Amino acid sequence: MMTTLLIKGGIVVNADRQFQADVLCVDGVIAQIDETICAPEDAQVIDASGQLVMPGGIDPHTHMNFPFMGTTTVDDFYSGTSAALAGGTTTIIDFVIPNPQEPLLEAYQKWRRWAESAVADYSFHVAITWWDESVRQDMKTLVEQHGVNSFKHFMAYKNAIMCDDETLVNSFRRSLELGAMPTVHAENGELVYLLQQQVKEMGITGPEGHPLSRPAMVEAEAANRAIAIADVIGVPIYVVHVSCQESADAIARARARGQRVYGEVLAGHLVIDDSVYRDPDYTQAAAHVMSPPFRPKHHQEALWTGLQSGQLHTTATDHCTFCAAQKAAGADDFAKIPNGCGGVEERMAVIWDAGVGTGRLTPSEFVAITSANAAKLFNIYPRKGLIAVGSDADLVIWDPQASRTISAKTHHSNNDFNVFEGRTVTGIPSHTISHGKVVWANGQLHVEKGAGHYIKRAAFGDNFTANATRQQQLTPTAVKR
Amino acid sequence: MMTTLLIKGGIVVNADRQFQADVLCVDGVIAQIDETICAPEDAQVIDASGQLVMPGGIDPHTHMNFPFMGTTTVDDFYSGTSAALAGGTTTIIDFVIPNPQEPLLEAYQKWRRWAESAVADYSFHVAITWWDESVRQDMKTLVEQHGVNSFKHFMAYKNAIMCDDETLVNSFRRSLELGAMPTVHAENGELVYLLQQQVKEMGITGPEGHPLSRPAMVEAEAANRAIAIADVIGVPIYVVHVSCQESADAIARARARGQRVYGEVLAGHLVIDDSVYRDPDYTQAAAHVMSPPFRPKHHQEALWTGLQSGQLHTTATDHCTFCAAQKAAGADDFAKIPNGCGGVEERMAVIWDAGVGTGRLTPSEFVAITSANAAKLFNIYPRKGLIAVGSDADLVIWDPQASRTISAKTHHSNNDFNVFEGRTVTGIPSHTISHGKVVWANGQLHVEKGAGHYIKRAAFGDNFTANATRQQQLTPTAVKR
Amino acid sequence: MMTTLLIKGGIVVNADRQFQADVLCVDGVIAQIDETICAPEDAQVIDASGQLVMPGGIDPHTHMNFPFMGTTTVDDFYSGTSAALAGGTTTIIDFVIPNPQEPLLEAYQKWRRWAESAVADYSFHVAITWWDESVRQDMKTLVEQHGVNSFKHFMAYKNAIMCDDETLVNSFRRSLELGAMPTVHAENGELVYLLQQQVKEMGITGPEGHPLSRPAMVEAEAANRAIAIADVIGVPIYVVHVSCQESADAIARARARGQRVYGEVLAGHLVIDDSVYRDPDYTQAAAHVMSPPFRPKHHQEALWTGLQSGQLHTTATDHCTFCAAQKAAGADDFAKIPNGCGGVEERMAVIWDAGVGTGRLTPSEFVAITSANAAKLFNIYPRKGLIAVGSDADLVIWDPQASRTISAKTHHSNNDFNVFEGRTVTGIPSHTISHGKVVWANGQLHVEKGAGHYIKRAAFGDNFTANATRQQQLTPTAVKR
Amino acid sequence: MMTTLLIKGGIVVNADRQFQADVLCVDGVIAQIDETICAPEDAQVIDASGQLVMPGGIDPHTHMNFPFMGTTTVDDFYSGTSAALAGGTTTIIDFVIPNPQEPLLEAYQKWRRWAESAVADYSFHVAITWWDESVRQDMKTLVEQHGVNSFKHFMAYKNAIMCDDETLVNSFRRSLELGAMPTVHAENGELVYLLQQQVKEMGITGPEGHPLSRPAMVEAEAANRAIAIADVIGVPIYVVHVSCQESADAIARARARGQRVYGEVLAGHLVIDDSVYRDPDYTQAAAHVMSPPFRPKHHQEALWTGLQSGQLHTTATDHCTFCAAQKAAGADDFAKIPNGCGGVEERMAVIWDAGVGTGRLTPSEFVAITSANAAKLFNIYPRKGLIAVGSDADLVIWDPQASRTISAKTHHSNNDFNVFEGRTVTGIPSHTISHGKVVWANGQLHVEKGAGHYIKRAAFGDNFTANATRQQQLTPTAVKR
Ligand SMILES: [Zn+2]
Ligand SMILES: [Zn+2]
Ligand SMILES: [Zn+2]
Ligand SMILES: [Zn+2]
Ligand SMILES: [Zn+2]
Ligand SMILES: [Zn+2]
Ligand SMILES: [Zn+2]
Ligand SMILES: [Zn+2]
Repeated sequence: MMTTLLIKGGIVVNADRQFQADVLCVDGVIAQIDETICAPEDAQVIDASGQLVMPGGIDPHTHMNFPFMGTTTVDDFYSGTSAALAGGTTTIIDFVIPNPQEPLLEAYQKWRRWAESAVADYSFHVAITWWDESVRQDMKTLVEQHGVNSFKHFMAYKNAIMCDDETLVNSFRRSLELGAMPTVHAENGELVYLLQQQVKEMGITGPEGHPLSRPAMVEAEAANRAIAIADVIGVPIYVVHVSCQESADAIARARARGQRVYGEVLAGHLVIDDSVYRDPDYTQAAAHVMSPPFRPKHHQEALWTGLQSGQLHTTATDHCTFCAAQKAAGADDFAKIPNGCGGVEERMAVIWDAGVGTGRLTPSEFVAITSANAAKLFNIYPRKGLIAVGSDADLVIWDPQASRTISAKTHHSNNDFNVFEGRTVTGIPSHTISHGKVVWANGQLHVEKGAGHYIKRAAFGDNFTANATRQQQLTPTAVKR
Repeated sequence: MMTTLLIKGGIVVNADRQFQADVLCVDGVIAQIDETICAPEDAQVIDASGQLVMPGGIDPHTHMNFPFMGTTTVDDFYSGTSAALAGGTTTIIDFVIPNPQEPLLEAYQKWRRWAESAVADYSFHVAITWWDESVRQDMKTLVEQHGVNSFKHFMAYKNAIMCDDETLVNSFRRSLELGAMPTVHAENGELVYLLQQQVKEMGITGPEGHPLSRPAMVEAEAANRAIAIADVIGVPIYVVHVSCQESADAIARARARGQRVYGEVLAGHLVIDDSVYRDPDYTQAAAHVMSPPFRPKHHQEALWTGLQSGQLHTTATDHCTFCAAQKAAGADDFAKIPNGCGGVEERMAVIWDAGVGTGRLTPSEFVAITSANAAKLFNIYPRKGLIAVGSDADLVIWDPQASRTISAKTHHSNNDFNVFEGRTVTGIPSHTISHGKVVWANGQLHVEKGAGHYIKRAAFGDNFTANATRQQQLTPTAVKR
Repeated sequence: MMTTLLIKGGIVVNADRQFQADVLCVDGVIAQIDETICAPEDAQVIDASGQLVMPGGIDPHTHMNFPFMGTTTVDDFYSGTSAALAGGTTTIIDFVIPNPQEPLLEAYQKWRRWAESAVADYSFHVAITWWDESVRQDMKTLVEQHGVNSFKHFMAYKNAIMCDDETLVNSFRRSLELGAMPTVHAENGELVYLLQQQVKEMGITGPEGHPLSRPAMVEAEAANRAIAIADVIGVPIYVVHVSCQESADAIARARARGQRVYGEVLAGHLVIDDSVYRDPDYTQAAAHVMSPPFRPKHHQEALWTGLQSGQLHTTATDHCTFCAAQKAAGADDFAKIPNGCGGVEERMAVIWDAGVGTGRLTPSEFVAITSANAAKLFNIYPRKGLIAVGSDADLVIWDPQASRTISAKTHHSNNDFNVFEGRTVTGIPSHTISHGKVVWANGQLHVEKGAGHYIKRAAFGDNFTANATRQQQLTPTAVKR
Repeated sequence: MMTTLLIKGGIVVNADRQFQADVLCVDGVIAQIDETICAPEDAQVIDASGQLVMPGGIDPHTHMNFPFMGTTTVDDFYSGTSAALAGGTTTIIDFVIPNPQEPLLEAYQKWRRWAESAVADYSFHVAITWWDESVRQDMKTLVEQHGVNSFKHFMAYKNAIMCDDETLVNSFRRSLELGAMPTVHAENGELVYLLQQQVKEMGITGPEGHPLSRPAMVEAEAANRAIAIADVIGVPIYVVHVSCQESADAIARARARGQRVYGEVLAGHLVIDDSVYRDPDYTQAAAHVMSPPFRPKHHQEALWTGLQSGQLHTTATDHCTFCAAQKAAGADDFAKIPNGCGGVEERMAVIWDAGVGTGRLTPSEFVAITSANAAKLFNIYPRKGLIAVGSDADLVIWDPQASRTISAKTHHSNNDFNVFEGRTVTGIPSHTISHGKVVWANGQLHVEKGAGHYIKRAAFGDNFTANATRQQQLTPTAVKR
């Protein structure tokens, strides 16, 4: 059955411009964009006057149904993507994270099964947590048969999923061959390991020990290292959850050399600082434990200006939710607190409020960093990230005047905590449209379990073609002797 | 009479992506873009298979018919815009430059008359070369009645058109009120003046004295100063012809603070170095005299990486042509050589060849820096700078395999010299389309004197709205005492 | 009559090292330094065991007896140098500041007369506040006959003592010829002027308007400009009272290019932030009005690390005291508050406490930034700034364990206010020795009006010789045509 | 028997200043420095008029008698220190480099034996090439009983002496406890290993493959990483042979944060560029193979300005000589060419000529970077690195007007090659004095095998005390819950 939806009277905002137009969606795809479109028969019509019509958000960094540190996140793909839609995010890119020695394809299939309950579109980065010839082969299969075009590397979590430099080198080289983007969680795991011991030796076992064991320099070192390796190998690179000035600087330095490096910022790091870890209430403090941790306040400025100046590119959440009972596992040792916070529902509104509402960003820049840039970097543009004829009808209708106060009481995550609790934001989604259907309207979700599609992503984006030409130009020659 | 043009089989390249599509132009406007479009009756059809279809170039910095240093450029608007079209550039933004004490509107009307012969679209920046209440008033008239949304300031040319800091401050403030972008030619005129004397005292009177009197630091100082003034006043700023690492750094520093600063690079500065001034042939050396001068080679890298990383934004030519006879005026004194070089025809091909051909830039990035970014910054997007339904049918069909060798013998400028003489470029326009008409095809111009339109540009682009919100956020308050 | 003083049992601290030694001073000069020296007959002996013996402080930036903004500082050379000695500072370099059109030599002679009451050694920088041929001539006379080797330039104070770029260029060139160091007060006077109006138009007339009218960017712009001018001219340059990150960065950038640039930091800027201006008590707020103003806290870190890393070189006070009655002149208009604060007595202890006491600085680094570096840069080393045989016996005996609480009630300035009021510092002078005489001991001053000597400073320090060689190396040549 | 030497009429140059003085040396120690000293009976007198008397050079980075890559350097401690003295260098700091699993003390004793033939003073850094509890213990023994206060870490040479991050962390922590300076050879060994394979796969097996396998980014990454680890651990750090802009930048960035980081530059890297590797003569090209390799020319500027601005601190040679026959081992595979070049004799003259002779450095700055800074950092100042009463009489008398042309034919190394061959330098040592004896005079060596002393170096230099205070200040506290 054909579904037809007409959005009337809004301002369409794309990353390159904004303009008044009606938008007609037919069968999940944008069919027409015009100054005035007459409603076809049977069409559902939404009055978007006074509102903005934007590409649905893409959160390129979530962990739903994630078994981690001996437990599993409270949000599965159903609740997680429901929350996403409630916040205006219509696509997530989650992570397949094999255990060391686990075949990549097995892990991949496992996550695919888990994701079947998703109500919004989803895709997967696959983590490289170990190395042998089978991993090399499986990377190829994933790229060529399963539409995976990005591989994740953890530089922290020693004795677990951490990659050493040798694996980084091997995997980055392989990624280059396959046209897939390497991404890194940048923290020097050796230093984290040392600092965790040192901090505990000082008698600090509470959550305040968490940021002490992962200072900015630990992140900046790893970011710089991963970028240097990518530079030498000639592959583009994407640094997830850039949380500090020094990492942002490492990215900016590399870009100033002409390197294709991209940085992702989490909504939480933009507005929350490290004072949360000194909350006398353990539950509160532990609820904020994630890696990298929230930072001293001045780092926020560096993240905002990085996004403004185009040196940082995407925003995400690292949505990875553990409830108070789970967080209690680290009551005597901060290193045992399951790492992770939510935010997939709040990201768009928090960034609009603190970014557009303060004049840091234009609405088009907002679309770029919440949707279009992620779509381009992970090569699903213009299907996603753009309002254009032929694109998926994944949209958010944004009411720039409306406000709400964020709370765990009202959010759609299964979690019992919200890091943005009590924050009142101006600028919220009145409607979210996924594949042409209204899935969120005026505070109500209308989702169908399993309605989300798995999104294949093609390899060899534009970055790779340009880089290949560049490498060829710079190819050295032997001296005749 | 309706004109219909169908471009078939090409790859459309916009700043955000590229895709295979046919493009139909009707009456000077893009009417349809689709995978396959059947040719309407009477439509002219161009086979673009194997070629790219891109927005026509915008050269935001030219001087046609310019009376300067006691003479007038050899290119008027007819020959200058003809050359532009031959090179794939369909819009220029030229400069109205009043003499000190000359009413702005009189100068503006004079330039409008001169431009009537143009064969491509054109617009004008207006220079602020002096200050009084009438200038303040005329700026408003220009913005509100004549579609001028940018004002130029020369920080060099002491005792002529140089602005001191007081005028900069006044004009930048006024620009902010009017929603117009201030732009600067950044060189410290006091230092140039000093150095010209010093160099001549050393017995250096030939063209090699020109770069010695205008070193990079002289430019960087002025760029930094103009940016600081704009920051304090809260107005966006555009730095024309950024030619050196140190200026590019000043821009990058400001952007890293979140300031809205934009930089323009000339095609010549990207590929020509300062060795030209030591040519033993005076005519050759003098022909390269322009300000800022060509720089030691390492600066080129900084300009390219600035464009790659998005810290520099547009490319232009400062097309300002004087023939050998005119350049001879400085035979005994380099300071008397009329400043200026050509390039409006060669810009696109030179940058494609040295930029895309080397893997520095993707085709979309090429479109951004040769067309779309200028259109956005000067607020004529999406009419210009984009291939979209409703946009002006100003297009260039680009043959990425074809080559040609640049020469004054074959170029369309009136000048007797070409700074790119002998350079063979791969990637050239096979056709240029202006307002839906083929004006350049396979080496032949088909232009009509006066066919160019004057382009009005609206004030208060997105930058200004965001900046205004930001200023409001940061408004200080008085202490109650 | 011969005076003999023996300091026994202390640790001698020079800028290059520290070592246990006795120090014998005879007739105002250091006569012997040895592990153990037997006290000559009639020698006064001080037991310095457990204490450090350091070169007396040099404050290279004070204004005693200064007629400014319609009034005169409450400290004259007698009270000002008394306070200096009480704090361990044995030499000041003050400023001769001619009014525009006032002959330099007349102003110089006037200040020499005012300084006759000094109880510690003093010297003078001379300000260039206007320009004509007589100024050029007088600079030579000052250098060659009066031992002036530094000239000061105010880039702020429009319509008063501000230099424009033309004067800067002329004076810097002249300084180069004479082997004298140009110094600058770096603030863009045009922007200050604008901002003062803007801030008042916003209805802010209290002292909180002062920092709003002189933000960091205003200082950084001027610093960058002065440095660029010095670079082009090839003369070393010294930037007084660097108060913000951005100025420190400008200096570091220039030094990274190999330029000989030096930066001075005031004790106040290292530890006081701009919250003082929002004190609801006008008297308190106004008492802190000086230029550049105290800055947001994060700038302090940049100043400290600049001193630590050797990118900033000296510490001073800009001691320039106005009492509450004088500060009241700006009750209705912050721009009329006489600019200036004290500190000549507190500098050494405040910096020791916040610098050495926190591990930022070693004792030798402390000596470098409070004494030796100033002596080297202004070419009075090793007479001043070093404990060595033959050097002036200007010493401070430092008790690193002793504490005191700073207060206007106990300080030796004539002022009724102290910006460090209530601050308890650990590490204070137990004795100060000037020309071999104990002038401060255990809380008591023993000074004699007029005992201070005027210190002539020779031109052409090492910097100038090296720069001259460098210029010669880089001298361009004409092309033969 | 007492030896007495009087140097008359020279200009004494120390790092802080220069002054005319006679210098009397008695029994190997400086006994008197005075404007005029009458020659004691039996004193040897040297007329130094028109010359400079400077502290003997300290080369903090040499490898004499070094078994490396399957062979042993042609210079042993006898020939190596003879060459040093001929060039004005009176102290070397060499390296004890245990094989993995070899007990540190055994290796140390082995090197001590090898060094017994030295004719100049020497000391040892000890390399940490593996880790276990015995290494931890031996580090303590070396520091406390053998006067070792610095430990070296190779971040390159995979499968040989390379440290991984875990060993770096362990050793840096131990160094902090012991008050010893960690030093690093900064190259990412994993990337070198990869690139060696890649370059050979491209068919490049000659010496030109050497720099291709070790680009600047490989060095900069490692430098940045080591510095970050040191920062987190709170220990000062010294980076040996900084050869590129990017490493120098990493050091400058860290110093700008207030970190105590120091950089060493090799004479060769200051004046030789990477074109040498493309010499068609294998012997020539291979003779220049060392790590890090010589770099593209623009890096030299960064090294010079780093030394000028005080962001880089010492100069050395990494003197490590292999003859043509040894270098032939890599005829078919550049990775097998023994790494190393000479220079211990040429360093001082090359740096004087290219540094002081061009105006980059003052004579005092020359002394700082060739002698005094190394002495301070490795805590043998003022015994070494200073001309003062009580210091070792290790001196060089420098003739700033005299020239010579460097050649393997005349040098004192055993090697058959000299990387500075054919370079004419102005400014050379006329005499070298070691422990008060003239060991080099007018082109003749007068050395005695075994006359060199082993120099013990005390732990806990000033840097450590300050850092310890700083750490204490920043110690975090637990939250009470
Ligand atoms: Zn992560
Ligand atoms: Zn994650
Ligand atoms: Zn210009
Ligand atoms: Zn121009
Ligand atoms: Zn001042
Ligand atoms: Zn002052
Ligand atoms: Zn090495
Ligand atoms: Zn070595």
